[in-house]
Amino acid sequence: MHTTNNDHAHWDLLITDANIATMDPAIDAPYGALEHAAIAVKDGKIAWLGSQADLPQFDVLATPTVSAKGQWLTPGLIDCHTHLVFAGSRAEEFEQRLQGVSYEQIAANGGGIASTVRATREADHETLFVAAKERLNALYGEGVTTVEIKSGYGLDCENEIKLLEVARLLGENHPVDVKTTFLGAHALPPEYKGRSDEYIELVCGEMLEQVVAGNLADAVDAFCENVGFSNEQTRRVFEAAKKHNLPVKLHAEQLSNQHGAALVAEFNGLSADHIEHLDEAGIKAMASAGTTAVLLPGAFYFLRETKYPPIELLQQYHVPIAISTDFNPGTSPLCSLHLMMNMACTIFRMTPEQALAGVTRNAAGALGLSDRGVLKVGARADIAHWQISHPAQLSYQFGVNKLLNLWILGRLS
Amino acid sequence: MHTTNNDHAHWDLLITDANIATMDPAIDAPYGALEHAAIAVKDGKIAWLGSQADLPQFDVLATPTVSAKGQWLTPGLIDCHTHLVFAGSRAEEFEQRLQGVSYEQIAANGGGIASTVRATREADHETLFVAAKERLNALYGEGVTTVEIKSGYGLDCENEIKLLEVARLLGENHPVDVKTTFLGAHALPPEYKGRSDEYIELVCGEMLEQVVAGNLADAVDAFCENVGFSNEQTRRVFEAAKKHNLPVKLHAEQLSNQHGAALVAEFNGLSADHIEHLDEAGIKAMASAGTTAVLLPGAFYFLRETKYPPIELLQQYHVPIAISTDFNPGTSPLCSLHLMMNMACTIFRMTPEQALAGVTRNAAGALGLSDRGVLKVGARADIAHWQISHPAQLSYQFGVNKLLNLWILGRLS
Ligand SMILES: [Zn+2]
Ligand SMILES: [Zn+2]
Repeated sequence: MHTTNNDHAHWDLLITDANIATMDPAIDAPYGALEHAAIAVKDGKIAWLGSQADLPQFDVLATPTVSAKGQWLTPGLIDCHTHLVFAGSRAEEFEQRLQGVSYEQIAANGGGIASTVRATREADHETLFVAAKERLNALYGEGVTTVEIKSGYGLDCENEIKLLEVARLLGENHPVDVKTTFLGAHALPPEYKGRSDEYIELVCGEMLEQVVAGNLADAVDAFCENVGFSNEQTRRVFEAAKKHNLPVKLHAEQLSNQHGAALVAEFNGLSADHIEHLDEAGIKAMASAGTTAVLLPGAFYFLRETKYPPIELLQQYHVPIAISTDFNPGTSPLCSLHLMMNMACTIFRMTPEQALAGVTRNAAGALGLSDRGVLKVGARADIAHWQISHPAQLSYQFGVNKLLNLWILGRLS
Repeated sequence: MHTTNNDHAHWDLLITDANIATMDPAIDAPYGALEHAAIAVKDGKIAWLGSQADLPQFDVLATPTVSAKGQWLTPGLIDCHTHLVFAGSRAEEFEQRLQGVSYEQIAANGGGIASTVRATREADHETLFVAAKERLNALYGEGVTTVEIKSGYGLDCENEIKLLEVARLLGENHPVDVKTTFLGAHALPPEYKGRSDEYIELVCGEMLEQVVAGNLADAVDAFCENVGFSNEQTRRVFEAAKKHNLPVKLHAEQLSNQHGAALVAEFNGLSADHIEHLDEAGIKAMASAGTTAVLLPGAFYFLRETKYPPIELLQQYHVPIAISTDFNPGTSPLCSLHLMMNMACTIFRMTPEQALAGVTRNAAGALGLSDRGVLKVGARADIAHWQISHPAQLSYQFGVNKLLNLWILGRLS
């Protein structure tokens, strides 16, 4: 199996002697694997890919060539759901809870998300940028080449804009490709206590208008939950997003069934995330709309949830399943996509192949990106090179980083 | 609070402007913390430690001085239970299990521990050394300065010796201090099927004699379990160890109550490890003998155990609790002591202070080492410097490595 074009004399990069987990469903093998294969890059995209034996003649001297030394290549990993930009630490609150202080008491002392919002509002762009860059570097060091970053700790016009500006700045100053999501409807800010409809009006109106004017968001998200915003309020957010031609996604069915996944499907949304309490009707709606299910095992682990997402039913209806860190200070302070792959297998009983699809092909789907997540001709040349003898090792063993090389848009980074 | 000696004009190193989590129970503060403090090193040991205001006059020009910049110091971390030296990968077996293949079928196909034993027997010293060094480097990068390594995948004289030789070599060629444990009684090798008493005879006789002759082990361990060796067989191993003046420890009460912890206490052993099924009588025996409880949350997580170790009862009887990776290919392929600290809190509901004590002071106790695990005058100058604003952050957030500097025996490494 191979594909080609006529430009092979002018490739920018050729990687030979590779085993390639293409993750391409068109290749009928586990992991879409091609063994003894090669891959060529031109202008940041994959120009040729196939069995090494089928490699066309190319200008050896003019083409920089790297041997993968029989090791494995995969698509660059994609973390499709993070809250990477925030200030403050919730470590002491974590400690208090383990010392027996109740949630209510912590909240009464100004803890919980309110403390992150307070610290984030006080922080300037640079402080936020420096902290977020450290986190982005941690993911990058694991072979991650695309990261989604949500706002949601500003909760007023000025500060939501600030978070999205920092996220955009990160993307401009880092090899990792950053996609941003406006999550103004993450929580009710304290100054709107008892006036959630008014806050939603602000989110849908002035706040979103400023976000759109600055071209600061690639998508719009909300937290639809009994402790968040109602299905009806979420609908208003989605309608506003639609008016601005922004795709939607949703924190849905994490703690209860609010029929948020069906709502996101109704808007042909990109993804419904968490979804522990999702029902079959919601799954059917997602399947029809092509909405991706994003599972967040870190939050499941950290909150010691016991209600599992309906993975078998999602698979039965062929809903694509992505896996992400949900990295955030309150419910998933775990900045490792590899750990999430292990947790997807260990906790959710997914297979290593499903876990890898969850951080490549399906994570791309959750971001509406059709140009990555699979290694095939025409796709972005975001390629991770691993010192492993089998792709299952990426999910199985944790802690010894197996990344050898990482190319983003065909450039070694 | 400070202590001093007369040699301060000849210190080798002074670290100023530090917050120090000494973990010294003699200091009546959480984490035994000293804020605005300094620490001086002479000949690889801590020569002075106390409030910066009490710092005695010292020869400024002759003493290399490092500012900790108001960040935190802790004792170097100690991973007191690992199986770091082995060959082969169990990733494909992990994948098969998640694809629905039964344990029995995998075992029938030569999988399970038998596959690790086979691969390890086939591997030479260098292969084992290279693979183990990668794992040791991962721990070292997290601030670990002492690691215990067990044999137990050789299961014959030649190969158990080989594993311990590799472990000793690692210690000689790496800044991390390596302690070795002979675990010949880890599993019954296939060639002894149905003849476990004969195998125990080999372990207690020729095998242990060769280990002792080569000075290859600092302690002796066994796996006392209905799928391992009986209480009576374990006793024979312990008696042999005693004859050679080697301290003992035990994989005890992991899957059932074999009264192994009481046995290890009877031999004044260093530690009983796993102990999910430990009863009150065993706890009392451990408390009397000063035996440390070593909890292994990685194995608990990876095996999806539901029976929790009796942490409250251990605390009630003042049994010191250590936390370790149990890094091994079958039941805990998680090579991160920081992750274990998070799991100790998240899964076992220990506090961050208990988790940090578990990988410092109490881990030292589990290895019988009184010269480390606490920062105090006279102790080894194994010091980790962290970019954190509170020591709880070490257990709370995972993935962004906060290690700034690491001194082993007072040398920056
Ligand atoms: Zn989230
Ligand atoms: Zn073990």
